[in-house]
Amino acid sequence: MHSRRVAILGSTGSIGTQALDVVAQHPDAFDVVALAAGRNIELLREQARIFSPKITATAEDGPAGLHRVAVESDAEIVLAATDGSVAFEAVFGAVERGIDVAVANKELIVAAGELLVQSARASGARLLPVDSEHSAIFQCLIGEEHSSVATILLTASGGPFWRMPREAMENADLTTALAHPTWRMGTKNTIDSATMMNKGLEVIEASRLFGFSGEQIRIVVHPQSVAHGFVIFTDGSVKSQLAAPDMRVPIGYALSYPKRLPSFEQGPAAFSNDDILRLLGAKNGEAKLQYEFEAPDPARFPCVRLAYEALAAGETQPTVLSAANEVAVTAFVEGRIAFGRIPDVIEGAMNRVRPEEPTLQGVKKADGEARTAAGKIVEAIERPIG
Amino acid sequence: MHSRRVAILGSTGSIGTQALDVVAQHPDAFDVVALAAGRNIELLREQARIFSPKITATAEDGPAGLHRVAVESDAEIVLAATDGSVAFEAVFGAVERGIDVAVANKELIVAAGELLVQSARASGARLLPVDSEHSAIFQCLIGEEHSSVATILLTASGGPFWRMPREAMENADLTTALAHPTWRMGTKNTIDSATMMNKGLEVIEASRLFGFSGEQIRIVVHPQSVAHGFVIFTDGSVKSQLAAPDMRVPIGYALSYPKRLPSFEQGPAAFSNDDILRLLGAKNGEAKLQYEFEAPDPARFPCVRLAYEALAAGETQPTVLSAANEVAVTAFVEGRIAFGRIPDVIEGAMNRVRPEEPTLQGVKKADGEARTAAGKIVEAIERPIG
Repeated sequence: MHSRRVAILGSTGSIGTQALDVVAQHPDAFDVVALAAGRNIELLREQARIFSPKITATAEDGPAGLHRVAVESDAEIVLAATDGSVAFEAVFGAVERGIDVAVANKELIVAAGELLVQSARASGARLLPVDSEHSAIFQCLIGEEHSSVATILLTASGGPFWRMPREAMENADLTTALAHPTWRMGTKNTIDSATMMNKGLEVIEASRLFGFSGEQIRIVVHPQSVAHGFVIFTDGSVKSQLAAPDMRVPIGYALSYPKRLPSFEQGPAAFSNDDILRLLGAKNGEAKLQYEFEAPDPARFPCVRLAYEALAAGETQPTVLSAANEVAVTAFVEGRIAFGRIPDVIEGAMNRVRPEEPTLQGVKKADGEARTAAGKIVEAIERPIG
Repeated sequence: MHSRRVAILGSTGSIGTQALDVVAQHPDAFDVVALAAGRNIELLREQARIFSPKITATAEDGPAGLHRVAVESDAEIVLAATDGSVAFEAVFGAVERGIDVAVANKELIVAAGELLVQSARASGARLLPVDSEHSAIFQCLIGEEHSSVATILLTASGGPFWRMPREAMENADLTTALAHPTWRMGTKNTIDSATMMNKGLEVIEASRLFGFSGEQIRIVVHPQSVAHGFVIFTDGSVKSQLAAPDMRVPIGYALSYPKRLPSFEQGPAAFSNDDILRLLGAKNGEAKLQYEFEAPDPARFPCVRLAYEALAAGETQPTVLSAANEVAVTAFVEGRIAFGRIPDVIEGAMNRVRPEEPTLQGVKKADGEARTAAGKIVEAIERPIG
């Protein structure tokens, strides 16, 4: 079996460490050739000891380090798992050279998805989704024609505030916002899940990756987080992908695509009826499963509306949405603004930044302007004038 | 758009009439070239008036009529929707000549699946499943490797007796057994659903069509009948196909494969959030969906165990199972035996008929012997000696 050469941007983060779990479980399937981390030097050193990459880089090495890991490491696939836009150029460089990219960084696709998709089409590189929802849609679309798809549904757990009244939610503190019911994720993702901006960004990401309009993409709340996405075909048939809420499943799929990893054995030994029910989400010993599906309430989750507006507006508005959201989430995490003001900061930035053509330059400019505008709005909220 | 030339064996039955509904909804997609019915001459005449087939045949024409419809009609696809084994030779003839067959008659695949699959492989004909469960599995397997599959799950509604205590079930009358909660089906299928032999036969059918062992095929009860099947892959990922419990969806898919019919429009007009929830099984006006999944109770449904035993024994034992089941169901419908004795008749026949190689001759011999043996057991039960 050929080992696939893997490089990881963001190896010490939540997705990066889980990807290395997958590699450790399937040592014959993968060969880690390069790792890039931010400031967690100690963990990177430990990872390097275990996986023996040829190249490592840290935040100190700057963009050149990320570029070496992604582009000069002879990787066959790069896992883009850094936060924010730091790895933008490195990922772009890999895609341009025809290297496959497993994208765990949804901001990257939101901010510059059209560019990345065009570049991948030109070079033959594959963009493989790592988000569980997009992995689900990707899997359901295998072997199907684009024109046979009526609508896709992204599932949402609903996050920690799904049942919270609007007023309580507006003033929720950081601890409550970080208490996600089902998924193990980083801070930024967990707050995005509480505002449901997570789903908003995912709608844009799905539009970019799969070429559907915003109107063809819907969100459905499914608190059990077992079904990750649905594709509704024009003939009334629906496909869904399900898995335990464990990011190692979609990470493994993206890294091994089009093959599937042999995490479970074939045949009867591995699967009792109990195992199957557990795999589909039953708690230990329960013989019965219940799934619920419900449409989200737009009034309590304005970030979802903002994301659909940014997607419909096009140009660099998705870039502005995503950059302003980063600023707003950081401000909330730092205790500078209330949870309920996050959408106000984003909407303010969307109104102030002038949309550009989504070229590389346009995206960078919009990103910078959005951060500046959002920063000013945060300051204004934090220290009201008068 | 090319119209696909379709021939239907069993056009006046439950599946046949629903197939003609599909054709009527998509007049550009299909051209009905031949129809065969049993004794419902009046309905066949009406169908001929509407669809103008070149060839029609009835039970009076015997096997030659079925052969003309399936093999001599220049059909590109034959829908095999007769009951029992009457169309066996006609279907075989079509498959041998490389004509695709949409198989709605599960007895055919159970009795002679190995032969049909071999013959289709040799001629290049496709065997396309019409049963909603097999259509689901077929759809979930598109683009996937056989070796990536760990287990498949066929869903069962549970039938009318799912919650009935064993004793009440053993003496259930015909009216109760025919009161199926979700599906519109013929008498034989509805009784098979009450005994769950339906699922037993489907396990064998799935094994033949998809090449999985009995141990890789499980049954899960899902009273809502919206998810029709699951494929569990070796990487822990699961795919499912869902649709309203309406046979026209899998019939349309089998007839139009690999294309999907445009029953719904693409885009926003066709799909409100309410539409989507209804498509996934919500009742009108309900904003919330619940799915349940549960393992069946082997003690209350011995027919399931018998089917797994026949599959494991191989040779012509599945033929015997299916033929004896037909005799037993007819005897119950005619009021000659109690509902609870159906499995006894089948098990008795399986013990008495000597297994053969599943050649064409072996299958015919086993079929005949099973019917004779089952008939004798029915007589013995009906008029106990002593």
